[in-house]
Amino acid sequence: MLTFVGLGLYDERSVTVAGRDAIRSADRVVAEFYTSKLAGAAIEDLEAAHDTEIEVRDRTGVEQSPGDILDDAADSDVVFCTAGDTMISTTHTDLRLRAHERGIETRVVHGTTAQAAASSLTGLQNYRFGKATTLPFERSHAGDDLPGSVVDTVEGNRDRGLHTLVFLDIDAASDDYMRADRAAARLADAYEDTLGVVVARAGSPDPAVRADRLSTLAGESFGDPLHLLVVPGELHLMERDALAALGGAPDTLLEELVV
Amino acid sequence: MLTFVGLGLYDERSVTVAGRDAIRSADRVVAEFYTSKLAGAAIEDLEAAHDTEIEVRDRTGVEQSPGDILDDAADSDVVFCTAGDTMISTTHTDLRLRAHERGIETRVVHGTTAQAAASSLTGLQNYRFGKATTLPFERSHAGDDLPGSVVDTVEGNRDRGLHTLVFLDIDAASDDYMRADRAAARLADAYEDTLGVVVARAGSPDPAVRADRLSTLAGESFGDPLHLLVVPGELHLMERDALAALGGAPDTLLEELVV
Repeated sequence: MLTFVGLGLYDERSVTVAGRDAIRSADRVVAEFYTSKLAGAAIEDLEAAHDTEIEVRDRTGVEQSPGDILDDAADSDVVFCTAGDTMISTTHTDLRLRAHERGIETRVVHGTTAQAAASSLTGLQNYRFGKATTLPFERSHAGDDLPGSVVDTVEGNRDRGLHTLVFLDIDAASDDYMRADRAAARLADAYEDTLGVVVARAGSPDPAVRADRLSTLAGESFGDPLHLLVVPGELHLMERDALAALGGAPDTLLEELVV
Repeated sequence: MLTFVGLGLYDERSVTVAGRDAIRSADRVVAEFYTSKLAGAAIEDLEAAHDTEIEVRDRTGVEQSPGDILDDAADSDVVFCTAGDTMISTTHTDLRLRAHERGIETRVVHGTTAQAAASSLTGLQNYRFGKATTLPFERSHAGDDLPGSVVDTVEGNRDRGLHTLVFLDIDAASDDYMRADRAAARLADAYEDTLGVVVARAGSPDPAVRADRLSTLAGESFGDPLHLLVVPGELHLMERDALAALGGAPDTLLEELVV
């Protein structure tokens, strides 16, 4: 059996009890931290909390040479874990399908996700979000302007009154995380006076939510990563009240968006 | 302090370790199960697992008379828990803002959500989903046809190549859950030969994923609730492979959607 366990958002206590039990009872535990990391726990913390050895693999070790993982999963219990929810993007679908093809049973123990936490912490309703997008590092994009994919997504959502969650690029291997002030500055090129909402350290014990003009957010600082940014569409009254109370958004800015 | 704890998707082990710790150390634990329930755990199971007394409130008790909860949270640790993630919709934002107004510290311990699990179990990429929608019971809607809100959402997403998550109506108080076969039949009125994906019992030990024409899904049965339905937009190759392998979708149907 190959069990995919989502470790959740922050530290060794962000995993579900079911996920922890799966890790503890596994014959072998493999993890990857190149797609994302737990800001609040090193691998040693996870090993100590779960009283087990955890083998960390790099991208090549997962994508090019998963043979030994599958071999073991064929006749024992192997757990493969990642931050967040392991299967939320298609990154590890390939591994699951390889197991499936070999007749190996697979199971997913879900983890909490940044997408859900962004909605939950801001008071913005989960099903008033449209498609999400990612703002890539300037270096991975030609120039430091705002990529068309981001503008298209924000515009497509705003046309329909929907919120846009903007994931900020992560280079987990070199511990490089785009900060929300930098992201707000880039978005402000196109959306200077538009309301933005910063979510910092979602899932940690000290998350921060801050809502204001993107040009204002560009001049603030939000502490340790991870950061996310939301560009709200239309606001219901409860959403307006939440952004005012929890994010300190100026009333005039909020009122323009209330429907 | 008022801590909102998401209990996650299925039973007493679906909560995070951090959430369990918050419940165990609280001076008072209040829960509501009118917005959603845990299919795999009764209140007694939760009380036994967390070795604490849990006071269940109905909607009136939460929305009209939360005074005693706030009074206690002003000078002791109160936990308010729900299935899923407590703050993902705006249902309980009001309670959080009331606490905030009184200067009571609030905290959110996130839970796993059906929205994330639907993406994770099907292999459909989380940020290729557009706005989600809910298919209401026929009785809460005029007639048994397909509400315009559902059609508009599916169309708006399909126009942009995006997947639509369709939540199926729940009447948790009377244990009434819309089944995916019934939902598929209603959607098939407008989308007979369109690909649909059923997700049953997300987050439980025996989830099911099934992908086929909506008219075909209407004639199948998917066991115990909760059920969800996804109407995919365009498919990437990995998404296609996942729906074929995990959902048994016919190849011809999938190929039409591949970009």
